[in-house]
Amino acid sequence: MKRTLVKHALASSEPREDILIQGWVRTRRDAKAFSFVEMNDGSCLKNIQVIVDASLDDYQRISDANTGAAISITGQLVASQGKGQSWEIVAKTLKVIGHADSTYPLQKKGHSQEYLREIAHLRPRSNLFGSVFRVRSRLAQAVHRFFDEHDFIYIHTPIITASDCEGAGELFRVTTLEHDAKKGDDGLIDYSHDFFGKSSYLTVSGQLPAEVFACALSNVYTFGPTFRAENSNTSRHASEFWMIEPEMAFCDLQGDMDLAEAFVKYLIGDILKTCPEEMNLFNKFVDKGLQERLKFVLERPFQRVSYSEAVEILLASGHTFEYPVEYGTNLQSEHERYLTEQHFKCPTTVFNYPKEIKPFYMRANDDGKTVAAMDVLVPGIGEIVGGSQREERASQLEAHLSAHDLNPEDYWWYMDLRKYGSVPHSGFGLGFERMLMFITGVSNIRDVIPFARTPGSAEF
Amino acid sequence: MKRTLVKHALASSEPREDILIQGWVRTRRDAKAFSFVEMNDGSCLKNIQVIVDASLDDYQRISDANTGAAISITGQLVASQGKGQSWEIVAKTLKVIGHADSTYPLQKKGHSQEYLREIAHLRPRSNLFGSVFRVRSRLAQAVHRFFDEHDFIYIHTPIITASDCEGAGELFRVTTLEHDAKKGDDGLIDYSHDFFGKSSYLTVSGQLPAEVFACALSNVYTFGPTFRAENSNTSRHASEFWMIEPEMAFCDLQGDMDLAEAFVKYLIGDILKTCPEEMNLFNKFVDKGLQERLKFVLERPFQRVSYSEAVEILLASGHTFEYPVEYGTNLQSEHERYLTEQHFKCPTTVFNYPKEIKPFYMRANDDGKTVAAMDVLVPGIGEIVGGSQREERASQLEAHLSAHDLNPEDYWWYMDLRKYGSVPHSGFGLGFERMLMFITGVSNIRDVIPFARTPGSAEF
Repeated sequence: MKRTLVKHALASSEPREDILIQGWVRTRRDAKAFSFVEMNDGSCLKNIQVIVDASLDDYQRISDANTGAAISITGQLVASQGKGQSWEIVAKTLKVIGHADSTYPLQKKGHSQEYLREIAHLRPRSNLFGSVFRVRSRLAQAVHRFFDEHDFIYIHTPIITASDCEGAGELFRVTTLEHDAKKGDDGLIDYSHDFFGKSSYLTVSGQLPAEVFACALSNVYTFGPTFRAENSNTSRHASEFWMIEPEMAFCDLQGDMDLAEAFVKYLIGDILKTCPEEMNLFNKFVDKGLQERLKFVLERPFQRVSYSEAVEILLASGHTFEYPVEYGTNLQSEHERYLTEQHFKCPTTVFNYPKEIKPFYMRANDDGKTVAAMDVLVPGIGEIVGGSQREERASQLEAHLSAHDLNPEDYWWYMDLRKYGSVPHSGFGLGFERMLMFITGVSNIRDVIPFARTPGSAEF
Repeated sequence: MKRTLVKHALASSEPREDILIQGWVRTRRDAKAFSFVEMNDGSCLKNIQVIVDASLDDYQRISDANTGAAISITGQLVASQGKGQSWEIVAKTLKVIGHADSTYPLQKKGHSQEYLREIAHLRPRSNLFGSVFRVRSRLAQAVHRFFDEHDFIYIHTPIITASDCEGAGELFRVTTLEHDAKKGDDGLIDYSHDFFGKSSYLTVSGQLPAEVFACALSNVYTFGPTFRAENSNTSRHASEFWMIEPEMAFCDLQGDMDLAEAFVKYLIGDILKTCPEEMNLFNKFVDKGLQERLKFVLERPFQRVSYSEAVEILLASGHTFEYPVEYGTNLQSEHERYLTEQHFKCPTTVFNYPKEIKPFYMRANDDGKTVAAMDVLVPGIGEIVGGSQREERASQLEAHLSAHDLNPEDYWWYMDLRKYGSVPHSGFGLGFERMLMFITGVSNIRDVIPFARTPGSAEF
């Protein structure tokens, strides 16, 4: 007999005489003449209830069907009398496939998130983490579907890069040289002997290579891992995370902001629709205002405000911030959250930032002071999207490179895009885990990544 | 006016009075009273033809609409008289957005693949590479759709890992220590001061972490970058490539082989259906037997043969191989290709390999000599899938670890999966680029990766 997943059994339209269910015991309750076994196979949040009659030949095995044990059940699928479940199984046979003794850590009692991180290899068997990782999977599917429906082509930009192109953060070196590598006369390691013939690093962004493809295929996106070797131990930073970076040819900052807004809304709408059980769980146990907040975001246009207006709002707010607000400095997380949570009370897109605080590749505005950058801020998180129109004018781009003490020769191929058929183009980056935190309400990035990498920690 | 992509214009069901097309000039032909401009925007293989009448105000700009230039055209979409195209544009306005002079490298004449690799930032603008990367994108979509339709959950397994778990190949070290890092008394670098508090590397496989999730969520898969620091400069090896690794709980080797076959066929079938123009191009210019071979694969069950039978077939073949055939050694690419191309003349799944040549995690068969491994071999490529049933019995797994000189303590969490609710489970890995080469007929892996990383080369 072919295995039926619990989610399909529970969604059955009719009873079935014979069904095979395989999964793990969540709880067991023994009565005089039978046992109730709650089984879960991870295909959905809900368990299926199995009734094992004491008259069954296999009933002798029931004492091994402990919490955590793997079991295989054949039986009848029948309408359930209990509330909250439509179907249950009346067992015909019971096999214990893999035992779990009383040392199994995920007994019924609750555990702290900190402890569950230490058993990250078992936590996906819990209701919360099973739900987080099912939603993570669905969110990734939704990312690909959104871009497919909008005629974007998926590009795998390189993970290993020899250029510190963006200067977006601290880099991890990738090397095969050993500790005793040959050193030059200056006592430094000669990386021309390294695997790629030069110093190489883990990517911080796929944007620059994505621009190459936008200037050939029009609408493209990346969705891959990116890395930051920053020694920041916060609940919002991980050393390894996944990022989505669309890039569009013939598109200005307006089009970029429009796409970002449509994208964020699509993702929220998709998860609310496809993962109702998980969302109810998060709303009940993780963040009681979650569903309301997400629906609010879904239904309203995002507020758009220029950086200088945003600064004026913050200065006029009378609110005391830890970091002072001043034109020409980056908005801090507390500023961003004030704008979206307190002032506008909705997602807010801030655009046209001072050129001094933004990277070289952003397009200079005609005012000579700002660049065509934009950030989308959401309640509870702050910045979730950062993007810009790119500088497509060769002479301006060279000037930006010089102003940032970068050498145009190192960017010869990037400059070529401005030399041959250059077009206005724009894009943004969305941190996949940030989005997942926003959608699930889970407040620590370590709890939305299968095995998180943070300073001092690369377990599992 | 909103931009229309060329692919949508060419698929129009009726003429349109006003349309905006933006893209790059492929060729231009000037006649006395008008010019023909072939425009491409990368949304599809086909160009759209634009007729620019000499009476147009903008006609003075036509001399700048050179090969490679970016242009913006408004006009009428009208039925085309020419053959091979259904629609063309009669221009009302013409703007040259970005110039391209005669130094633009992709003039009409053909170029060698080697030269095009040197201009990997421009080659996506060619017919061949535009097609390769559109098919690459679609193939990735098909991967996700297949698993979604089969109730698999997508897992992002870590890229940075502190365990050389699989021993599958040479590793890249990931570090933030500088050349002058503090050394211990032994003169060696003390990696306990490194970013993650220990030596860390780029992953060679997501399998072991994927097993964690299969033992919680039943059916899972990974699709992410993997790395090999091997100094092999062949047309089939890259240092960075993407791999797909499904893992299924309650699944034995038969189920594993069934899934691999269904998956390979699904991918081929999807691309033949969704990318007919690109496939015709590959069939015409890359590999004339391509479509026939793919249809052949699609229509027949894969041959299944045990390793020992395969060795007997090879020994009895009378064929002279470069590497000798002997029971107990790995099949070489030439052996694999003989089996699938010469002997069976169809994809071939070889199973039950000698335990000595396979990794520790594969399940021991009852014969005491072989393990439940399987490889799928396809014509022209050789091995495209490698998988196995995993050893789910704790005592056997410990014995395998010892036999491979590995320390069970280093695998404590992997052993835990065998301690708590262990289940038979199986999975495989499919190299995404190998599959793409098989489907496109492109024979060098460097030509199916946006920016390939190979020994000595991490350009762009």
